[in-house]
Amino acid sequence: MTPNETAEYDVVVLGAGPAGEDTTLALLRAGLSVALVEPELIGGDCFNWACVPSKALLRPGHAHRAAGRLPGVLESPSAPLDAAAVLAHRDEVVLHHDDSATVREFVQAGATFIRGYGRLDGERRVVVDTPGGAVQITADQAVILATGAVADLPAIPGLSQSRPWTNREGTSANKAPRRLAVLGSGPAGLELAQAWRSLGSEQVVVLSRRETLLPDFEPYVGELVLEGLLESGVEVRFGVQAVEVTRDNAGEVSVQLDDDTVVTADELLVATGKRAFTGEIGLETVGLQGGGFLEVDDTMALGGTTWLYAIGDVNGRALLTHQASYHARVAAAAIAARSRGEEPRVTAEADGVAVPQVLFTDPEVAVVGLTRARAEAEGLRTRYVEADLGGVLGAQLHAHRYRGRVSWVIDEDAGTVVGATFVGQDVADMVHAATMAVVGRIPIERLRHVVPSFPTMSEVWLNLVDELT
Amino acid sequence: MTPNETAEYDVVVLGAGPAGEDTTLALLRAGLSVALVEPELIGGDCFNWACVPSKALLRPGHAHRAAGRLPGVLESPSAPLDAAAVLAHRDEVVLHHDDSATVREFVQAGATFIRGYGRLDGERRVVVDTPGGAVQITADQAVILATGAVADLPAIPGLSQSRPWTNREGTSANKAPRRLAVLGSGPAGLELAQAWRSLGSEQVVVLSRRETLLPDFEPYVGELVLEGLLESGVEVRFGVQAVEVTRDNAGEVSVQLDDDTVVTADELLVATGKRAFTGEIGLETVGLQGGGFLEVDDTMALGGTTWLYAIGDVNGRALLTHQASYHARVAAAAIAARSRGEEPRVTAEADGVAVPQVLFTDPEVAVVGLTRARAEAEGLRTRYVEADLGGVLGAQLHAHRYRGRVSWVIDEDAGTVVGATFVGQDVADMVHAATMAVVGRIPIERLRHVVPSFPTMSEVWLNLVDELT
Repeated sequence: MTPNETAEYDVVVLGAGPAGEDTTLALLRAGLSVALVEPELIGGDCFNWACVPSKALLRPGHAHRAAGRLPGVLESPSAPLDAAAVLAHRDEVVLHHDDSATVREFVQAGATFIRGYGRLDGERRVVVDTPGGAVQITADQAVILATGAVADLPAIPGLSQSRPWTNREGTSANKAPRRLAVLGSGPAGLELAQAWRSLGSEQVVVLSRRETLLPDFEPYVGELVLEGLLESGVEVRFGVQAVEVTRDNAGEVSVQLDDDTVVTADELLVATGKRAFTGEIGLETVGLQGGGFLEVDDTMALGGTTWLYAIGDVNGRALLTHQASYHARVAAAAIAARSRGEEPRVTAEADGVAVPQVLFTDPEVAVVGLTRARAEAEGLRTRYVEADLGGVLGAQLHAHRYRGRVSWVIDEDAGTVVGATFVGQDVADMVHAATMAVVGRIPIERLRHVVPSFPTMSEVWLNLVDELT
Repeated sequence: MTPNETAEYDVVVLGAGPAGEDTTLALLRAGLSVALVEPELIGGDCFNWACVPSKALLRPGHAHRAAGRLPGVLESPSAPLDAAAVLAHRDEVVLHHDDSATVREFVQAGATFIRGYGRLDGERRVVVDTPGGAVQITADQAVILATGAVADLPAIPGLSQSRPWTNREGTSANKAPRRLAVLGSGPAGLELAQAWRSLGSEQVVVLSRRETLLPDFEPYVGELVLEGLLESGVEVRFGVQAVEVTRDNAGEVSVQLDDDTVVTADELLVATGKRAFTGEIGLETVGLQGGGFLEVDDTMALGGTTWLYAIGDVNGRALLTHQASYHARVAAAAIAARSRGEEPRVTAEADGVAVPQVLFTDPEVAVVGLTRARAEAEGLRTRYVEADLGGVLGAQLHAHRYRGRVSWVIDEDAGTVVGATFVGQDVADMVHAATMAVVGRIPIERLRHVVPSFPTMSEVWLNLVDELT
């Protein structure tokens, strides 16, 4: 498409992260024409500078420790990873930040891809700044905002001048810093702390404002993850806040803490949260305000309209790639239905009820639905069952002296599972069965007929079954 | 208990394999008194000479290959396993075939454990031959037969005189034979072929009567497993039958095949099937016939009685440990209900409908429910969806160039999943989500709300979701 031309599509999608990608493909399947607009790289943060490279950095360490937990596998279990090989593989996984093949795939699938910075320009209109000039686009059916979220640096004196790492540098760096300090003890901070430690950082310190790790999960989660971090050589400082950050001429970063101690490091990773990227996308041209997360209804439509949608991180419902993909399908289905003059049949009913999340730390954490505390706060009459995953033969065979824990939250009145938590090596894929139980509202009485295969780790479900008999 | 004493229990359980163990614990939980009778070791074949030691032999090789499929993890990916360490660990896992600690656990749980050979001696009566003499026991409520199944040697001239391995030697041997021949290409034969190859056997040949591997599964299963076997150095001969077996004075075994070739090896593992252990357990004293598998109703009761039950392999419903454990709980619930004068509320409705099975080959195979062919043979209007597991980012991050495949069988009229198959590295625990879907009869329309976490392998479920939209 030539600049200055005015083009018309059924749908214009702003942002080609997972949300934008998946909604584009779903819209194309539904027979609609789509323009996909992205100023940076297809795949967005997740594919290029977050979950994907992060997992590529973590997984070799996990596989190495998994092998070391079995007899006779590793010649020297304490031998370090070949970090250069891992980093080269990471680059390969993210396609060396070259998205030309992916762009071709989208074009072949029928999408128009426009590289440029897009913003709303009135109702059903978008303008894209491309290298060749501004491009005007009309969206007959809908505009979908999938502009994501960006690292939100806290207002700490000296921080922004100290060249801190965000998730971008933290996942794309080409060598492990000798000393790494991590500000923030959420999932992303803990994952990258463990990754760089396994890749050769001699000293990794996580600085946590809170007194426990991962307090939003079941209480044992933070305890087990802390054990794993300490074993892998990551230090954690609890209950500390950074009050000033400086980087000296030799490149050393100093973090002054509120307990009057100073942590020095070669790099400082800031992983304290994200903010919606909504400030400069023309929301004011349609009478809306940018800056914060965008509130949507369960069809992902914004501000009471049926033409403007917001999916993925930007709507703030759950800053997780898979929920973005879920929103992407829901929005596409709603737009396709409305384009036929029908009411949307599919809404994002899983949001807030059955959102899974996996932390790729070692041990891994995989959760879905409500914690016990959350269920009780919501007034549910709950029953809570906890089990030792290491007591299951399938786990003992998976790793010698396997350590892990599982719990379920039952809504006694509904008679169904409303939450589950798994902690241990290789539990990431175990949570999907729990998500089935939660979303499928399988009566707990029927769970006795859901037989787990022996010897697998899923056998731990028998602990729940036996509680019910 | 002293021999010649006559003792009385609510329930007598013959056989302390997984079925006997689990039903004993469930009966104790229900407040019934139980005598558990076992001539050999608690845990039965599964724990002592089958699935458990087999998995202990296989898992190190799997973890080794998994580590080798990621960059930078192994110093020398082709280095062999330390077989002595693996075998020593296998011995530790099976408690060196010393069940005294397990016996103590059962006694502490409230069971009476009697080491001896038990058989029926009329209605609600059992006699046990113990080292000290015969013991008479009365079972007020029920006798449960959990006597299992044993390797069934085919009638091939010379075979039984050639000291073949069955699952017992195949899982307990203390060194890898230089050359191993395997008669039978079912799950057990393939697993042990790959295990011993990874533990140092230079030549492993599987002799298959059929022309394809694993023909009872979806067609791609046998193809992918064959690829994995060949890559790990296991040979497979298709469409051959052994017509004579000899072992010479030097210890070499020769298997004469019906295509006029001869396979020579140091050991011959026979894995052609199992037969019920029902020949000498006194069935004739209650007017029943032994020898074959025992047909039971869905409460596991035998021959129209409400006092005689048969659970696990011995009833022939599914020769799988986890189904034995399922039967164990169903029978215990039925006996507990009947002891209170109530009708059993729980029956074995999952049998034949939602039976999972995992093959711990590399690639692993995990299935549940009906194959497409089986569903069609049963007259269901089916839809079949197949997906490339290697196309999923979660899998690509789990292992470089991950190869795997997944399929689902949908009953179009019921609108639910009735079968699923997973093939690939580490899919063993992925099938449990499918078992939830099958047993929970989750409407396929609801599966779009069962969000798989990114990046995990469960993301492959999105292929099914997208087929439905």
